[in-house]
Amino acid sequence: MAERSVPFRDKAIETAPRPEIEKIQTAALRTQIAQALKTPFYRPRLEEAGLSSPDEIRSLADLSRIPFTSKGDLREAYPFGLLAVPKDQVVRVHASSGTTGTPTVIYLTQKDLDLASDTMARCLTAAGATSGDVVQNMMTYGLFTGGLCFHYGAELLGAMVIPTSAGNTLRQLKFMKDFGTTMVHATPSYLLHLHQAIADEGYSRGDLRLRMAVTGAEPHSEELRLKIQDKLGIEVYNCYGMSEMNGPGVAFECVHRAGMHVWEDRYIAEILDPDTLLPVPEGEIGELVLTILCRDAMPLLRYRTRDLTRFIPEPCACGRTHRRIARFTGRTDDMLIINGVNVFPSQIEEVLLRTKGVGANYFIIVDKDGVLDKLTVQVEITPEMFADDSRVINALRERLKSELQALITINPVLEIKQPGSLPVSEGKAKRVSDLRPKE
Amino acid sequence: MAERSVPFRDKAIETAPRPEIEKIQTAALRTQIAQALKTPFYRPRLEEAGLSSPDEIRSLADLSRIPFTSKGDLREAYPFGLLAVPKDQVVRVHASSGTTGTPTVIYLTQKDLDLASDTMARCLTAAGATSGDVVQNMMTYGLFTGGLCFHYGAELLGAMVIPTSAGNTLRQLKFMKDFGTTMVHATPSYLLHLHQAIADEGYSRGDLRLRMAVTGAEPHSEELRLKIQDKLGIEVYNCYGMSEMNGPGVAFECVHRAGMHVWEDRYIAEILDPDTLLPVPEGEIGELVLTILCRDAMPLLRYRTRDLTRFIPEPCACGRTHRRIARFTGRTDDMLIINGVNVFPSQIEEVLLRTKGVGANYFIIVDKDGVLDKLTVQVEITPEMFADDSRVINALRERLKSELQALITINPVLEIKQPGSLPVSEGKAKRVSDLRPKE
Ligand SMILES: [Zn+2]
Ligand SMILES: [Zn+2]
Repeated sequence: MAERSVPFRDKAIETAPRPEIEKIQTAALRTQIAQALKTPFYRPRLEEAGLSSPDEIRSLADLSRIPFTSKGDLREAYPFGLLAVPKDQVVRVHASSGTTGTPTVIYLTQKDLDLASDTMARCLTAAGATSGDVVQNMMTYGLFTGGLCFHYGAELLGAMVIPTSAGNTLRQLKFMKDFGTTMVHATPSYLLHLHQAIADEGYSRGDLRLRMAVTGAEPHSEELRLKIQDKLGIEVYNCYGMSEMNGPGVAFECVHRAGMHVWEDRYIAEILDPDTLLPVPEGEIGELVLTILCRDAMPLLRYRTRDLTRFIPEPCACGRTHRRIARFTGRTDDMLIINGVNVFPSQIEEVLLRTKGVGANYFIIVDKDGVLDKLTVQVEITPEMFADDSRVINALRERLKSELQALITINPVLEIKQPGSLPVSEGKAKRVSDLRPKE
Repeated sequence: MAERSVPFRDKAIETAPRPEIEKIQTAALRTQIAQALKTPFYRPRLEEAGLSSPDEIRSLADLSRIPFTSKGDLREAYPFGLLAVPKDQVVRVHASSGTTGTPTVIYLTQKDLDLASDTMARCLTAAGATSGDVVQNMMTYGLFTGGLCFHYGAELLGAMVIPTSAGNTLRQLKFMKDFGTTMVHATPSYLLHLHQAIADEGYSRGDLRLRMAVTGAEPHSEELRLKIQDKLGIEVYNCYGMSEMNGPGVAFECVHRAGMHVWEDRYIAEILDPDTLLPVPEGEIGELVLTILCRDAMPLLRYRTRDLTRFIPEPCACGRTHRRIARFTGRTDDMLIINGVNVFPSQIEEVLLRTKGVGANYFIIVDKDGVLDKLTVQVEITPEMFADDSRVINALRERLKSELQALITINPVLEIKQPGSLPVSEGKAKRVSDLRPKE
C-alpha cells in the first residue's frame, strides 16, 4: 500500500500511551458508577457487589467486581429503570427497531449526544473522510441509531450530508450522480444491490465520484468486503456498534482496514470466555463485553454483547494506541460445542467461501455417533466443478477436510453436493442443524 | 381564555417595533442579494433588473425591483445553480420527497442549519413548549424537512425528543404511554387516525400525558382543528412552512391560536394579487410570496408559494409584532374564476363542513350557461337528514345557498344528494370539475 497520511480528530487522545488510556478509563468508570448508583436498576446490584460508592473503583482491576448487564436486564429496566438524570435533561431517545415485546431503549443528554457525534466524527476522520466529502446516508432515520447517530457525526465533521435514508434505489443513484456523492453509509447487502442497480441503470463509473463506503449493522465476511471494493472500485470501511452503545462508531477501521479500533477513552472493552466469564488469553476469541464511558443519562456496565471477536495484539501502522478488534466470528448464540470444542459456523463458512469450485450453499449438521459428536458439512460445488473429473472433485473434498480440521481441530465428514441441491437460505442460523438430543 | 404567561425565545426581536423589523429586513435583504449575486441562476437576472450590487437595496421599497422566483426556476437551477457558497461549506441537503422528475433541493451551511433550528425552537416556545416536554415526532425523517428540521428545533429547545418518524401506530401509542409524551408533531389526518387508534386499542385518557400537537404539511380547516382538539383533549397548533424555506416554522401560532406569526426577521412576506403581482389591500387574500433572510448557502428571493392567505391586521394579544397570516384559503392552482370572481373550493368546503345535516362528500361543477358561468354544488346529506321531512331538507338547501352566496358572491345551484351517492375522494382537487371549454 502506498504511504498515506494518517488523519486524526484528536491525536493526543488517539495515540495516548496505554497507562494514560487506563487513567482516563479509571476516572470515567468512576463517573459511570456514580451515575449508575442514581438508577433504580443498578443501585441494589452495585451495593450487593460492595460498590456503594464510586471511590470503590481504585484501578481498572476493580472492573471485575462489577456485575454484568444483559439485554434481558435492559428489557426489565424499561422504560426508566436505567435513567440516571432528571427527565428534563434528556434530549434524545432511541429504541431497538424491534421485534415485538419490550423494546430496548437508550437516553442521551445534550452532552451525551455531543460526545456520540464526536466519536462518530472521529471514526470518519480515521477512515480519511473530510469536510469536503459528500456523504449519502442510506441507513433508516428515526428510532434506529444507525441513521441519526451517523448523520450527526458526518455533520459535525462538516461534510455535505444527504439524508436519503433507506430504500428508493433509483433516487439514491440519481442523487449520487447529481451531487457527486463521495461516501455512502449502507449495509453490505445494500452495497451489493447498489452495484447491481448501477449496472442495470446504465451508469458508468465516470458518472459517480464515489470513493468510499462505511458499512455495518450486518455480519459479513472479508471476502464480501473485497468483492464490494472490487466491484464498486471504492474503499469499504467496517464499523461496529449497537443501539445500546449509542449506535455505530464504538469501533472503526482506520485507513489500514485491518481491524477496528475500539475508542478506549469512551468504551472499556473486555473479551471474555462466554462460559467462565473470565478474560481469554490475549488474541483469542471470546465474547466482547462493553462498558460505555461517555454517557451520563444512561450508564451501561459490562454489557454482554454476545458478539464474538478477538483483540489484535500487534500495534497498528496508523499510530493509534486504541486496541483493534477483529471482524466478528459470530454470536455466542451461534456457537456450537462439538466434542468440547467451540466451533462457529462462520469459521466453516470462511473456509468454504475462499475455496475455488465451492458453490453458493452449504449446510452443517451436528449429530451423535455413539458417545462422540459428529460434524457433517454438506457443500454445493459450482456447475463447472461438478462437470469436472471425479479425481478433481475428490481432491477438493480432501482439501476442504484438511483446511477445516486445521482451523477448528475437528475432522468433519464432508459431503459434496450437486449445484442447486441444498435449500437456499438467507441467514447463517438456517444453515445449521443440531440433531443431538437435548440434555 | 384564562390569562396565560407568554413565553419568548428572543423577546427583543419578537416584539421589536415595525421600524426596527424593517431595518433588520433591509440589512438582511442586502446580504441575501450579495449571496444571490454569487449564484449562476440569480446573477444575470439581478443584473438585468439593475441590481448588480447589494447597495442597490436602500429600503424595503426596493424589494419590488427584485424578480420573482418560481418552483420551475428551482428545477431549472438543479442541482447547483442556486448554491452561493463553496460546496465544502454545505452540511445539509434536503429535497422534495417528490413526484417523478427533477427534485427541488435546498442547501444549508452549519450557520444556516443553526438558524433554522433556532427558528423552530422559537416557534415551539411561542406555543408554550419547554425543555420539560416529551416530544414525539411522527413526521418522516430523511430528505423531507418536516422530520429532521422540526427534530433539530425540539432538540435545541432541550425537549426529550423521540424520533419515531411516521407510521407504526401501535408503537407510537406504546411510546406515548410509556414515555409520557406531552407533544406530538403529525399531519391533521394522522392525528385523527391516532385518536381512532387510541379508542380501538382501549387506551384511556389517563394513560396519556399528551397536552399539545403541532400540525402542518396538509391543508385543513379550523373545524378540523377544533374537532381534533376536542377529541384528544389537547391544544393543536398550526405550523406553516415548505421545504424550499427550510421546512416547518416559517410561521407559527402563539398560545392564542389566532393566526400564524411570520418570523419577519428571517422571512419577508408579501401578499400579492396572483394576476397583477401587486400587493393586495391590507387584510385581503392573495398569494404569499416569501424571501428567506437567514440562509447563506441558498438565497431564494420573492419565491411564489402559490399559497393563498391574508395578513391579520390587528395586533396579537401575545405582544409579538411579527405579523400573523390567516389559515390558508387554498392554492392559486385551485382558484376558480367564475364570472370574474375568484372562488376557492376551500371556501365552499368551509360552509358545508360547519352545517349540521351535511354529510361527508360534496362535488363542485363549473359549466357554461349561455355566456355566463354556472356553479353547481352537489351535497350529500346525513342519513338522519335524508330520513327527515322534505321541508327540513328544503330549508337546508336554501340555507346553504344563501350562506354560499354571502361568502363568494355567486348564487350556486344546490343539489341535495342521497348519503353515499357521490364518489369518495381523498383530495380537494378531485372534488372539482371544470367543464367550461378551454380558450
Ligand atoms: Zn489503525
Ligand atoms: Zn401572538
